[in-house]
Amino acid sequence: MAFTMPQKLLFKHCDPAGIAFYPRYFEMMNDCVELFFDHIGHPFEEIIRTAGVPTARIEAQFTAPSRHGDRLEITLRATSLGRSSLGLTFAALCGEEVRFRASSTLVYVTQQGRPQSWSDTLRAALTPHVEGKN
Amino acid sequence: MAFTMPQKLLFKHCDPAGIAFYPRYFEMMNDCVELFFDHIGHPFEEIIRTAGVPTARIEAQFTAPSRHGDRLEITLRATSLGRSSLGLTFAALCGEEVRFRASSTLVYVTQQGRPQSWSDTLRAALTPHVEGKN
Amino acid sequence: MAFTMPQKLLFKHCDPAGIAFYPRYFEMMNDCVELFFDHIGHPFEEIIRTAGVPTARIEAQFTAPSRHGDRLEITLRATSLGRSSLGLTFAALCGEEVRFRASSTLVYVTQQGRPQSWSDTLRAALTPHVEGKN
Amino acid sequence: MAFTMPQKLLFKHCDPAGIAFYPRYFEMMNDCVELFFDHIGHPFEEIIRTAGVPTARIEAQFTAPSRHGDRLEITLRATSLGRSSLGLTFAALCGEEVRFRASSTLVYVTQQGRPQSWSDTLRAALTPHVEGKN
Repeated sequence: MAFTMPQKLLFKHCDPAGIAFYPRYFEMMNDCVELFFDHIGHPFEEIIRTAGVPTARIEAQFTAPSRHGDRLEITLRATSLGRSSLGLTFAALCGEEVRFRASSTLVYVTQQGRPQSWSDTLRAALTPHVEGKN
Repeated sequence: MAFTMPQKLLFKHCDPAGIAFYPRYFEMMNDCVELFFDHIGHPFEEIIRTAGVPTARIEAQFTAPSRHGDRLEITLRATSLGRSSLGLTFAALCGEEVRFRASSTLVYVTQQGRPQSWSDTLRAALTPHVEGKN
Repeated sequence: MAFTMPQKLLFKHCDPAGIAFYPRYFEMMNDCVELFFDHIGHPFEEIIRTAGVPTARIEAQFTAPSRHGDRLEITLRATSLGRSSLGLTFAALCGEEVRFRASSTLVYVTQQGRPQSWSDTLRAALTPHVEGKN
Repeated sequence: MAFTMPQKLLFKHCDPAGIAFYPRYFEMMNDCVELFFDHIGHPFEEIIRTAGVPTARIEAQFTAPSRHGDRLEITLRATSLGRSSLGLTFAALCGEEVRFRASSTLVYVTQQGRPQSWSDTLRAALTPHVEGKN
């Protein structure tokens, strides 16, 4: 089940070459994950009171440049749910053109940073969104 | 031939969990690339007057959290030099502990964003730094 | 005439103390200015093709901390329009509580950075929004 | 007594107009404050374990644009030390040219964000650096 965040490319996102500065794309992906957790009823600001959801790995291909003013649609898909991990993919399109694709793994950790099993409520909230699981 | 950039983890790099916010790591890697090009005598600010060096892909594993005040050493290695590409790896250590590893591919492009062959001077400057090439 | 941009305080905006990192507030104000120019029909991405609108001065009072998850309303008011300048004020509220107030001056410049008179179309678009001018 | 931090203007600091994006200047000033506290023997990463040092107000004039590659010298001066406040000024020069000037007020607060008197050790460490106090 896909979740999409619109994102206009703003002045702050662009570099002297006039195109998106790629570390800003990772901020966007982080925002998209945060919005997704809002959407499933478990906002980050609540989760991080007692736990953490750091990104353990991420990879991205930047296939075409984005320019100031471009209107991107960033689509997140949850592709796997492990004992304490969540696999995600991202695709950013501007119209029909793919600007970047990425995949990442989040881990549910204790406040001390140790991986822990997803809580029952988080697992129940995530499961319907994991592709092939519903 | 390795190139190392020291980077103390500052307040601005850290998130509410008190650890490095991973998009900041990508800024650090970008800074490290920029410093490396300085080091080989071709600063980014000169290159981008007539060309570009965008990152076409990057992947990273965040293997242990970094905390405010940690002193990282980020080591860049050039691993391959293609017609218009440059392969890089990064390793960030705090003392003996690896905090992240990454690899990326840069592409030398025209100001219109089209891949072009490295100029002779850039190729000559890069070649001695590519592992296994000297 | 006031222009308001809603802004939820996201993970990326917060520091290790769990509150908004103030340089992020300046990014938000910049986004708000950009959105305002969109709103009056002159998007930044068009303006900066032939000119610039840098901020010449800004001052801000951070009157109460904002926390992750807070829903801010950032209100911009245009308070003066000079030959080549635009005076703005900002107020960010969370519910009834003021989080910050700011004022800034933008300058309309040539691509070489020299102040120039607002174009007739920009002046016509801005004037109705300047307080006390309509 | 002045404290100076060199700062080369990097790719990440610059906007599509090829000049410094001003919110990045506030990050630099924050870095400079952090380095100053390191310098006087009280690193931020230690202070924030038990307290906070938020910026209560800041104002800045951006007097000339900075370009990618420019080598700035950012000079911090402590101008006043109150019961729980610290007044600072900043001047950023590139060679002889002033790029920005700023002044700010920091407040020493409890972890709950309430102003508190500077601890004796912090006051003792700060006092010799406050202009006109030694």
